[in-house]
Amino acid sequence: MVLPFDIMEYQKRLDNTKKRMEEEGIEILCVTNPSNMNYLTGYDAWSFYVHQMLIVIIDEPQPIWIGRTMDANGAKATTWIYDDNIIAYPDYYVHSDIYHPMDFIGEILREIGQGNRRMGVEMEQFYFTAKSFQRLQRALPDAFFMDASNLVNYVRLIKSDQEIEYMRRAGIIVDQAMARTIDYIQPGVRENDAAAHLYYNLISGTPEYGGDYPSIVPMMPTGDHTSMPHLTWTEQTFQENSPVVIETAGCYKRYHVPMARTISLGQPGERMQYVASVVQEGIQNTLQAIRPGATCSDLEEAWRNSIKRYGFEKESRLGYSTGLSYPPDWGEHTASIRSDDHTVLQPNMTFHMIPALWFENDGIEISTTFRVTETGYELFTSYPLELIVKDNIGYSSNPISS
Amino acid sequence: MVLPFDIMEYQKRLDNTKKRMEEEGIEILCVTNPSNMNYLTGYDAWSFYVHQMLIVIIDEPQPIWIGRTMDANGAKATTWIYDDNIIAYPDYYVHSDIYHPMDFIGEILREIGQGNRRMGVEMEQFYFTAKSFQRLQRALPDAFFMDASNLVNYVRLIKSDQEIEYMRRAGIIVDQAMARTIDYIQPGVRENDAAAHLYYNLISGTPEYGGDYPSIVPMMPTGDHTSMPHLTWTEQTFQENSPVVIETAGCYKRYHVPMARTISLGQPGERMQYVASVVQEGIQNTLQAIRPGATCSDLEEAWRNSIKRYGFEKESRLGYSTGLSYPPDWGEHTASIRSDDHTVLQPNMTFHMIPALWFENDGIEISTTFRVTETGYELFTSYPLELIVKDNIGYSSNPISS
Repeated sequence: MVLPFDIMEYQKRLDNTKKRMEEEGIEILCVTNPSNMNYLTGYDAWSFYVHQMLIVIIDEPQPIWIGRTMDANGAKATTWIYDDNIIAYPDYYVHSDIYHPMDFIGEILREIGQGNRRMGVEMEQFYFTAKSFQRLQRALPDAFFMDASNLVNYVRLIKSDQEIEYMRRAGIIVDQAMARTIDYIQPGVRENDAAAHLYYNLISGTPEYGGDYPSIVPMMPTGDHTSMPHLTWTEQTFQENSPVVIETAGCYKRYHVPMARTISLGQPGERMQYVASVVQEGIQNTLQAIRPGATCSDLEEAWRNSIKRYGFEKESRLGYSTGLSYPPDWGEHTASIRSDDHTVLQPNMTFHMIPALWFENDGIEISTTFRVTETGYELFTSYPLELIVKDNIGYSSNPISS
Repeated sequence: MVLPFDIMEYQKRLDNTKKRMEEEGIEILCVTNPSNMNYLTGYDAWSFYVHQMLIVIIDEPQPIWIGRTMDANGAKATTWIYDDNIIAYPDYYVHSDIYHPMDFIGEILREIGQGNRRMGVEMEQFYFTAKSFQRLQRALPDAFFMDASNLVNYVRLIKSDQEIEYMRRAGIIVDQAMARTIDYIQPGVRENDAAAHLYYNLISGTPEYGGDYPSIVPMMPTGDHTSMPHLTWTEQTFQENSPVVIETAGCYKRYHVPMARTISLGQPGERMQYVASVVQEGIQNTLQAIRPGATCSDLEEAWRNSIKRYGFEKESRLGYSTGLSYPPDWGEHTASIRSDDHTVLQPNMTFHMIPALWFENDGIEISTTFRVTETGYELFTSYPLELIVKDNIGYSSNPISS
């Protein structure tokens, strides 16, 4: 078995998790977020559509993985934990109106004498349902439950050098995939064919680095729909004199580098050029504010002040911490770049900055993913941070900015 | 706006949902499952990584969509419901430790005088977290909550002719994508490059039908890992004399046709040929048992008896209802083909039958998706239901079966 990280790195992640558990008075952490399960053990499979859990016991050296029988071999193959700590529940627990995997998990915890402890559960996590919590409480009447929703997520906030290296590879992959997809897009081409090209390049990757699947599929609104950032592609063809937004991410060993660009098919109107130039200037001003010691709110302020000069404002947050992820999101649900988030930037924090402006009938997205360095920032991609204009004779960046 | 279904079809779905609500004494249904939201309204966007809800009030003609501000335009564009019934919450509710979208939703329900009714919530549904339920209860102290986890899912069980037509298109897409991917795979090719080819073909679709994204990414275990059905691809190359399992689905307008095949690179060993022939015979015997009036357990029994003759048994269920879906699953969480499921088959029910056998060091998967017809079954794909043997001079089906 080849793990993506040295076993010492997993051990350190587990130690850091236990430190936080101790601070919060949690004796047993019930990890259900697939990204957190992967972070602590290496576990990597598309098995999170059934219930599974990684149990971290504060005074036990190794966590326990509990999942479906057909997934136990995969847990043995992709994690560093002992085979004895891989426990499987029978298939009749799957999608049943009678049985629930949390009954089984509770029973295991009672059997090993851990049924009466202080349990942290990820209350705000998609793969821990409302019913999961009810059934786990019922199965463990002597336990005391606490919310530990983002406990491991916060351990993930500052990346190791190896994690950064994986993100650099994801950056190389998405840079190339975006460039090739923009090359391919033209009026008359079907949107789904462009999405197919994008996917091909994201997964094929480079001769050195094979791509992993991004946690969000390519989003590709066009025309009026550029005001609707989370629409995917259709079977329709691209139209002349129409904008296209592509938001996607490169992914390498589950590490993401998201990236968005707006393409104008044909010369953009004056308004679009103007909005794009405001966004482009805002990006540069925000990037200049990045350094260790600055806060997320400082970055948001740099952006807000930059676009305010032109009469614009953005209601939604400017960005969020990103990195390791499983569907449905590549955000880490910890630090957000917004006015009330005073997280202090530290080297090897990584953010997707999405300085998009959406209006009633259109929108502009030009996003980038950066790492905080000792002195400033490193971008994971090199594709120009500009509106891309593509007409019959080729393409160029926003004429206003050049 | 072009909806994938006639507005009368959405109306009928809503009526059927209200009928079930009435039977169960539910006055307000809080729909958070993205597939159910789409089924009732057409709503289609990758926005389910933040909280959103469709509220069906039994004595109101139209449901209410509540979601994030940046997604409201998408809801207006992709659904048949009135713009006035699209309500947006501000961005500070997103991934916040303080604010929760369910606070907002509760407030809206109180404001419109619906705060004290009998509410059905999807307790066992990934996009309704344990915290969502806590916060909704807190926001609506006068409401009475009931579990309505699969209420809409069961309305989805029998497909309309238009839904079946979309599944036929998904079947054409996956048939072709599977064939081309198997053509492409050979020793020395990287797994991720094969996944890239598969993705390209699934999304590009055919000249007539553009592919949508499947709710599960391609799974592609090889060698020993064929005992681990939910592993995805790696950067490694395919090896000679080694099996490869591909499980994927064609998707058209969110309708899925899943399909799995096992490929032997080089002539398979005797054991693999033997197991494959047992599975192939089991498939045919199970298919013969499909007809309206038979039960899910009847199909499982046909399969079980067929493989028992050769000393095999399968611990996991034989299949499940499939069709409309969003990640992380293409199963509908209603009828399962297993011994304790006595669902009576009716025309236009659709199932993914996955008669896979997994052992300690290998596994065989040959799956198909079928519709129950008036007299028997219709398969959505035509690729042979056999072990595919690929050697240097070309490929063929399992020699034992032919």
